[in-house]
Amino acid sequence: EKNISEAVIRRLPRYYRYLEELEEKKVERIPSSKIASALRVTASQVRQDLCSFGGFGQQGLGYNVSLLKKEIADILGLTRSYNMIIVGYGNVGAALSGYSGFSKENFKVIAAFDTDISKATPEGLTLCHIDTIEAFIEQNEVDIAVISTPKSVAQSVAERLVNAGIKKIWNCAPTELDLPENIILENTNMSASLYMLTYSRR
Amino acid sequence: EKNISEAVIRRLPRYYRYLEELEEKKVERIPSSKIASALRVTASQVRQDLCSFGGFGQQGLGYNVSLLKKEIADILGLTRSYNMIIVGYGNVGAALSGYSGFSKENFKVIAAFDTDISKATPEGLTLCHIDTIEAFIEQNEVDIAVISTPKSVAQSVAERLVNAGIKKIWNCAPTELDLPENIILENTNMSASLYMLTYSRR
Repeated sequence: EKNISEAVIRRLPRYYRYLEELEEKKVERIPSSKIASALRVTASQVRQDLCSFGGFGQQGLGYNVSLLKKEIADILGLTRSYNMIIVGYGNVGAALSGYSGFSKENFKVIAAFDTDISKATPEGLTLCHIDTIEAFIEQNEVDIAVISTPKSVAQSVAERLVNAGIKKIWNCAPTELDLPENIILENTNMSASLYMLTYSRR
Repeated sequence: EKNISEAVIRRLPRYYRYLEELEEKKVERIPSSKIASALRVTASQVRQDLCSFGGFGQQGLGYNVSLLKKEIADILGLTRSYNMIIVGYGNVGAALSGYSGFSKENFKVIAAFDTDISKATPEGLTLCHIDTIEAFIEQNEVDIAVISTPKSVAQSVAERLVNAGIKKIWNCAPTELDLPENIILENTNMSASLYMLTYSRR
């Protein structure tokens, strides 16, 4: 097993997406300097990151695009597919369920849950009442639950999901969740990206 | 001027949101150990991060919640307000324009742009044709442009924004943008958070 730092893991999605685009353009090899300028990082950072899992760079030839992409997909767990449910079907839940990129990358939204099931959903997606969520989880393979409820109910919803057996939670509600250590938890704060534009720079 | 590393800056939004919640709960002081367990980081990481800009921790007393929050708000540039436009009004654009957290934090969406202006928008938000965007930017103070167009047009839209004078761009389109160095650019990749749940852990 490779032991790659989380800081490197967090940078891999950008490499991955860039390599995908190169592959679409039939580019076969790419030097670290080009990756660096496209992603606005230094070439030495690129080499160091890719080196940490034995990237395929060759002096003078650069990296083999499809081999490197395959290796990163493997590290990111993208060689299998995942079933997702979306809990809380407001603006954020609707945007996530309508995002075509997920299905392209083997993330399949199999159901959405809300207290109001009269809301419109994209074709093929069923909106179920939140009270049926435990039964749904019992009867279906659910790999990932996305929490996009209002802040006030996010913690209680998360606890219900954990009690029903969910192990991986993507928290898009605007609050921190307090969950057992064994639950894999990822937080997305929509405002955080804006702060990166507004922070006082030198 | 403080010189705080970008890695620390990227962690500040979580501290900030947590401090906001503490303030709502009328908590006046908090030890680093409590911040650490709430945010799932180590107490030493918390102390190190907050130390880097002279956080207000006191041995045995912990941090003063509102002073620390004010200091972080200052670093993140949250002591003023910002006008935003959303370019590309699909699912992602709609979710961003309907997100109430932004206005709470002084980010105001003043207009949205698309090629199809017949789409429904929240009350108070005007959807304008993309061809009017240069004129709009000339006539209004626009601090931040959010790009939520399809991938295929993101680069050309970004260039139009830059030519019209936009300096800060939040790219939510699923592609990398190639823009001049002086443009402050932040990328959000919706799938990246999912990868953090699926990557092969030790």
